[in-house]
Amino acid sequence: MLLLLIPGPVMTRPEVKAAMTVDLAPWDRDFHPLLASVRERVVTIAGGAPDTHITLPLQGCGHFVTEAMIRTFIPAGGKLLMPMTGAYAQRMVRLAREAGRVPVPFDVPMDRPVAPAALEAALAAEPEATHVGLVQSETGSGVVNDPAVLGAVARAAGRRVLLDAVSAFGALPMDLSAQPEIDALVFTSGKCLEGMPGLGFAVARIDRLEASQGNAGSWSFDLSDLLAHARRSGLGSFRFTPPAQVLNAFRTALDLFDAEGRQKGRLARYAANTAALRAGIERIGLRPVLEAQNQGPIVFNVHAPADPKWDLFAFVDALKQRGVLISNFYNTPMPGFRVGTIGAVEPADLTRATEAMGEALDELGLKRREAA
Amino acid sequence: MLLLLIPGPVMTRPEVKAAMTVDLAPWDRDFHPLLASVRERVVTIAGGAPDTHITLPLQGCGHFVTEAMIRTFIPAGGKLLMPMTGAYAQRMVRLAREAGRVPVPFDVPMDRPVAPAALEAALAAEPEATHVGLVQSETGSGVVNDPAVLGAVARAAGRRVLLDAVSAFGALPMDLSAQPEIDALVFTSGKCLEGMPGLGFAVARIDRLEASQGNAGSWSFDLSDLLAHARRSGLGSFRFTPPAQVLNAFRTALDLFDAEGRQKGRLARYAANTAALRAGIERIGLRPVLEAQNQGPIVFNVHAPADPKWDLFAFVDALKQRGVLISNFYNTPMPGFRVGTIGAVEPADLTRATEAMGEALDELGLKRREAA
Repeated sequence: MLLLLIPGPVMTRPEVKAAMTVDLAPWDRDFHPLLASVRERVVTIAGGAPDTHITLPLQGCGHFVTEAMIRTFIPAGGKLLMPMTGAYAQRMVRLAREAGRVPVPFDVPMDRPVAPAALEAALAAEPEATHVGLVQSETGSGVVNDPAVLGAVARAAGRRVLLDAVSAFGALPMDLSAQPEIDALVFTSGKCLEGMPGLGFAVARIDRLEASQGNAGSWSFDLSDLLAHARRSGLGSFRFTPPAQVLNAFRTALDLFDAEGRQKGRLARYAANTAALRAGIERIGLRPVLEAQNQGPIVFNVHAPADPKWDLFAFVDALKQRGVLISNFYNTPMPGFRVGTIGAVEPADLTRATEAMGEALDELGLKRREAA
Repeated sequence: MLLLLIPGPVMTRPEVKAAMTVDLAPWDRDFHPLLASVRERVVTIAGGAPDTHITLPLQGCGHFVTEAMIRTFIPAGGKLLMPMTGAYAQRMVRLAREAGRVPVPFDVPMDRPVAPAALEAALAAEPEATHVGLVQSETGSGVVNDPAVLGAVARAAGRRVLLDAVSAFGALPMDLSAQPEIDALVFTSGKCLEGMPGLGFAVARIDRLEASQGNAGSWSFDLSDLLAHARRSGLGSFRFTPPAQVLNAFRTALDLFDAEGRQKGRLARYAANTAALRAGIERIGLRPVLEAQNQGPIVFNVHAPADPKWDLFAFVDALKQRGVLISNFYNTPMPGFRVGTIGAVEPADLTRATEAMGEALDELGLKRREAA
């Protein structure tokens, strides 16, 4: 079996895969407790409370639930200030623009977290921007931003925050109750909670959903309508046909998350994965893109070696023949390759992967391994 | 194991469920042939040709791909004429209205197919409606409309057609090459092709996608951008993270579809299911909602019995205890219950289900079984 080292969809545990093999009738009342319990558990992981926050499941992928968040909380023509942390900040900008909102991007260094002072200055220069869009773990670079720090800046400026927590949720700390400026965060089933792909989730403030009725301009993507539906039909009911097997597997994934010691336990393993990867990468003579203190525990970028024989696809294929699958593209400005450190993998898997990388470089005859 | 008799998600074969239990990396080049082959097979089932039509996979549910179709082919402010065949025509109306399009509903009898003359008259009265929205198999009533007949009316009037084939595709005949007026049809993975839920598909005309760039007002739901992506990245590539396991299971479902004799074989079984259900329903003294000649092979509605003790939830629960699951709601104007005749079920299953219904009625003490 191939070892997947990609930042989602991730390797899953056998119990999660087994939960996919059942026919389910999502309108059956016996199905309702499944969704209701998942909603409650997700609010808890987000540090929210049932009287202030609700989990809204949305069929599909991260783009969809991110667009739904933008449409719901920002009316058409509204302004969204975006620190351009990388490819996933660009995603929010494009989603907002095509939905008729006005993204206001501002440049920040992509190799370190957004500086609070930079956000403060950008907010001061854009008094009409009601919202800041923030990517918690930038899958492009691997840098992690702390929503507690940047949220406080937005709060002090009287602005609200939309948080893309897609590749972060479950692994990084989150305390929505301490951050009233966050209208919603979004994430998906197939990342750090180690479920299967196919479902997005928003965790949103109930008061803000109520205040946002009529904004969305899309029935499918109207998160305030998901709140209305939950009130009408109960927390166990989907609006539209869900990927029920994916939800069933996600519940099993939450059980495993609890058993591992929840967010702290998960983060500890991912941090150990990252440390093992960094050590192995340096051992084979390659150079990580980020300084260690700026490196998040989810996505790890490595500089391409200077050797002119470097070819990303050839390297990926040679690695695959050794049982290790990494991304065959990168989102960093300089050429390199990208390794995911999340999913049902252990530090020993990462160490083994770097050994395989060394062998692959040897096979491809790549001698000059310093950064290009 | 519960026998699911609902109009999707349906019972699936063990081979389909088994295909869900694998970790997949959708950006890996080894994954590409899976999507590329599914696309090609779906165009063939739709009666399209690779030079004129393309299959566009969209994460999520039927609502999402239906909204994407409406947004892509009708610009904001454009008019969509809708014969109101039932709940799923209402769905298209709401999706269009919230997306800023102008639905023009017109009433038709809900217990029989739309009369061509009625559509002709409605089109004459609405010269500004560029499109007709049509539900091929109306899940609300169980009535099937023939897109060949109604499409010809639209074509003669110089209009175009958007087809909701969600609960029909694979079981009912479809010949897109003979119907150039159809911009696109949409369907989902978990209906008559007997896959798992989680993916929508559009089969669309390439020339119309090209002419529709810039209409959608949503990156997520822009089908013309899916065409652009396919041209840029190949037919094996998704734009956004897919529910890869659902696609893998769908391929297995297509293999089983081929083995059954494709659309003709599938329709023959569903027609036999429907006949067995009708005979059994009449045997236990209940009355079908539709005349036999208006009854489609996918969804079957039964009138509630006149007995004042009738209670849909009690009946559904009593049936469930006998191993049979039906819908716990109905979309017909008069009270009743709804049975799906699609999925991996045989006529003998439907006969057994009607026997269980008779026992459930006995248990509940329902003596007056003629229609309320």
